[in-house]
Amino acid sequence: MRDTDAVDLVTAELHGSLEDPALMSMNFLNEITGRYPEALSFAPGRPVERFFDVESVHRRLRTFSDHLSAGLGYSPEEVSRTLCQYGRTKGIVHDLIARSLARDEGIDADPESVVVTVGCQEAMFLVLRALRAEPRDVLLSVSPLYVGLTGAARLVEMPVLPVAGGAAGIDLDDLVAQIRGARQRGQRPRACYVMPDFANPSGLSMDLATRRALLEVAEREDILLLEDNPYGVFHGGEGTPPTLKALDTGRRVIYLGSFAKTVLPGARVGYAVADQRVRDAQGATGLFADQLSKIKSMVTVNTSPIAQAVVGGALLENAFSLDAANSREQEVYRANRRQVVEGLEARFGNCEGVSWNTPAGGFFVCVTVPFTVDDDLLELSARRFGVLWTPMAHFYSGPGGSNELRLSVSSLTGADIEEGLDRIAALFAERGCAPTAHTRFVRSGGRAP
Amino acid sequence: MRDTDAVDLVTAELHGSLEDPALMSMNFLNEITGRYPEALSFAPGRPVERFFDVESVHRRLRTFSDHLSAGLGYSPEEVSRTLCQYGRTKGIVHDLIARSLARDEGIDADPESVVVTVGCQEAMFLVLRALRAEPRDVLLSVSPLYVGLTGAARLVEMPVLPVAGGAAGIDLDDLVAQIRGARQRGQRPRACYVMPDFANPSGLSMDLATRRALLEVAEREDILLLEDNPYGVFHGGEGTPPTLKALDTGRRVIYLGSFAKTVLPGARVGYAVADQRVRDAQGATGLFADQLSKIKSMVTVNTSPIAQAVVGGALLENAFSLDAANSREQEVYRANRRQVVEGLEARFGNCEGVSWNTPAGGFFVCVTVPFTVDDDLLELSARRFGVLWTPMAHFYSGPGGSNELRLSVSSLTGADIEEGLDRIAALFAERGCAPTAHTRFVRSGGRAP
Repeated sequence: MRDTDAVDLVTAELHGSLEDPALMSMNFLNEITGRYPEALSFAPGRPVERFFDVESVHRRLRTFSDHLSAGLGYSPEEVSRTLCQYGRTKGIVHDLIARSLARDEGIDADPESVVVTVGCQEAMFLVLRALRAEPRDVLLSVSPLYVGLTGAARLVEMPVLPVAGGAAGIDLDDLVAQIRGARQRGQRPRACYVMPDFANPSGLSMDLATRRALLEVAEREDILLLEDNPYGVFHGGEGTPPTLKALDTGRRVIYLGSFAKTVLPGARVGYAVADQRVRDAQGATGLFADQLSKIKSMVTVNTSPIAQAVVGGALLENAFSLDAANSREQEVYRANRRQVVEGLEARFGNCEGVSWNTPAGGFFVCVTVPFTVDDDLLELSARRFGVLWTPMAHFYSGPGGSNELRLSVSSLTGADIEEGLDRIAALFAERGCAPTAHTRFVRSGGRAP
Repeated sequence: MRDTDAVDLVTAELHGSLEDPALMSMNFLNEITGRYPEALSFAPGRPVERFFDVESVHRRLRTFSDHLSAGLGYSPEEVSRTLCQYGRTKGIVHDLIARSLARDEGIDADPESVVVTVGCQEAMFLVLRALRAEPRDVLLSVSPLYVGLTGAARLVEMPVLPVAGGAAGIDLDDLVAQIRGARQRGQRPRACYVMPDFANPSGLSMDLATRRALLEVAEREDILLLEDNPYGVFHGGEGTPPTLKALDTGRRVIYLGSFAKTVLPGARVGYAVADQRVRDAQGATGLFADQLSKIKSMVTVNTSPIAQAVVGGALLENAFSLDAANSREQEVYRANRRQVVEGLEARFGNCEGVSWNTPAGGFFVCVTVPFTVDDDLLELSARRFGVLWTPMAHFYSGPGGSNELRLSVSSLTGADIEEGLDRIAALFAERGCAPTAHTRFVRSGGRAP
């Protein structure tokens, strides 16, 4: 019997990712959230929960089953087999996803180019695993960036070179400089990861001219673009410019989609649209989607058809428009963004060194402060002030973000937002950053007495 | 606009796994099955479909929801959040799985050591990703072996060194020789992958003495054992010897579990039990399960709680015994194994050079023949004779299996088994291997006229 205190393994002999800041970050942020369950939290990028309903899971499952039987003429045995048995590696709702992309995004996707994945995270992992063939292969990404992308890259040992964002969402001169610098060092830049709509964590979006120019750079420099779009649906009411994929005439873009925010996180369904043509060693040509599928068969075999059916049901019930399906959620996030930005203005409007952006959509507002923002400050904020948020430094692979914090506006509502901002104001005051005397906003937008 | 015929990528510049025999194998086998949908198939290791039922998916989901509310006192909001929101990376049915392992396998697993995964495939991937820290890290495995393990190893660029199986299921002298040989070459053997009960593809099992001796070798040689057990439940009626994990007093065994065969492939739920104690760079000690969880957060974030709830419901409905839950399935596979073995005897009993094994459980029977068995023969078998099976060569990383084929007994039933074996007999005859004149067995076991 082994001593219960004996050590069996040490991380120094396990994969390097396990001591990597990206994976440690995710772990720390989860851990502190778990440790302070009563804290008001501006931390998680989770969708609003109040519309969740287990009955809607059952209903969507039935909608999809009915679609198979009444719509497609499947026998009861075929319906059971489709939902219960091992299935097509690339998924069973690929055609419904293609219809949704046409309807909401003006993307004309061949259903065969769609790979349904276990959340968008698996889609990222599959793409990076495929593209990272040799140690010299590198990825570019606007910095700061989603920590899940950094983590997936780390699992396949693919360096991520940061590209400046700036007000345009991407600094194209810096992108070109980074690509050329990498090539001079003997590296092979394969792709640049971007989130053109209401990016996590910056909240920034790219305008149409920037999108077109980015596609031109990709073509000229011969790299792919990985377009991640979890938040585009949550615009301010005036929509968004076309996605890169909708503008892509050169098959430069791999589109990464998620249903976690638009349908249900608990389904864990996402996808990649990968229509690039790939020639194999035998000279045969096929879709990049089929190469991703081969990798997927060795990671998760296939995405649960039951989970896919829940998403498929939601698409069918909403005539394939996630924009239409999310009108309630859009309104919540819109009101929350306004309330957070107005609340920051009311508290810090004339507080020197404190500033924030005003994103037109999405989940995130970034706040810049004149003091250091790190995990210790977050710990203090949770323990003494009962409020959580995310240090922006977690989203930079190198230095950066050390006086910025990210506020997610998706979880808290109404009075909790006001109380949460009050607690943040108390924290800032503790750091010598005295807030202005503020008065609460009421829902109408007018001021309470 | 890019020429639709232009090539965007070549596999030579993508990850090497994409041209690897393991991934090509899986692809070829899926592809040929798709190309001959009417063929009788002894190929797939899929569970019997006749008991599948979409209503049982709904019922199990309700059972689990009721367990949360009535059993654990969750509010309706908490139930919704648990099933619909992002969730715990290690899963939400870990405690139910631990109870099932105690009930069926006599395994005493700390629920915190259980990582719920997207099928057993993801569990394998996570373990290999964690263990493959450097190019010198290698895995050992009994050969022939499950192609999904080979593929997962290939994704993390971890060589798999074959160990002879033999009648005992593993040749322990060869295991030691391979470990020591690897060390002499400067390699670091991390673990040996085994399937002690009714292995895929060999059908072989290890007896109790072999299991104990294997654990001793692992201890002495300081390697881990990866015990994969998808088929143990499908024994012949007399049970199986204790699993390695049940015998494991030294935390040498990482147990890999699957619900694909025992509950539902469409849930895509599996798990790893990883109770090894790991010390990190800061000197803190935790479970290997928590290291796997960090990797999982960058591959799939978490396993769909809806899919987990379906499995959890099945465990709750069967008082945590998958053995009891599968009595109908056990009977089907038992009858099928008998029918296939008797059918082979009837057709090839005195046909020189044709032999087969008689597994005590599981899905697979192996047939040895005096001619070459390869993909071309399978293609011929499908096209001319309308019967599918699997060339054993796919399960060897090196040479081997070139005159063996694997018959899965899990999908076909009754008359289809007889007809399928007749077609195989016609194929064998075409290869100069004349079957004996045979008479059909009837269900009672007696001979038809």
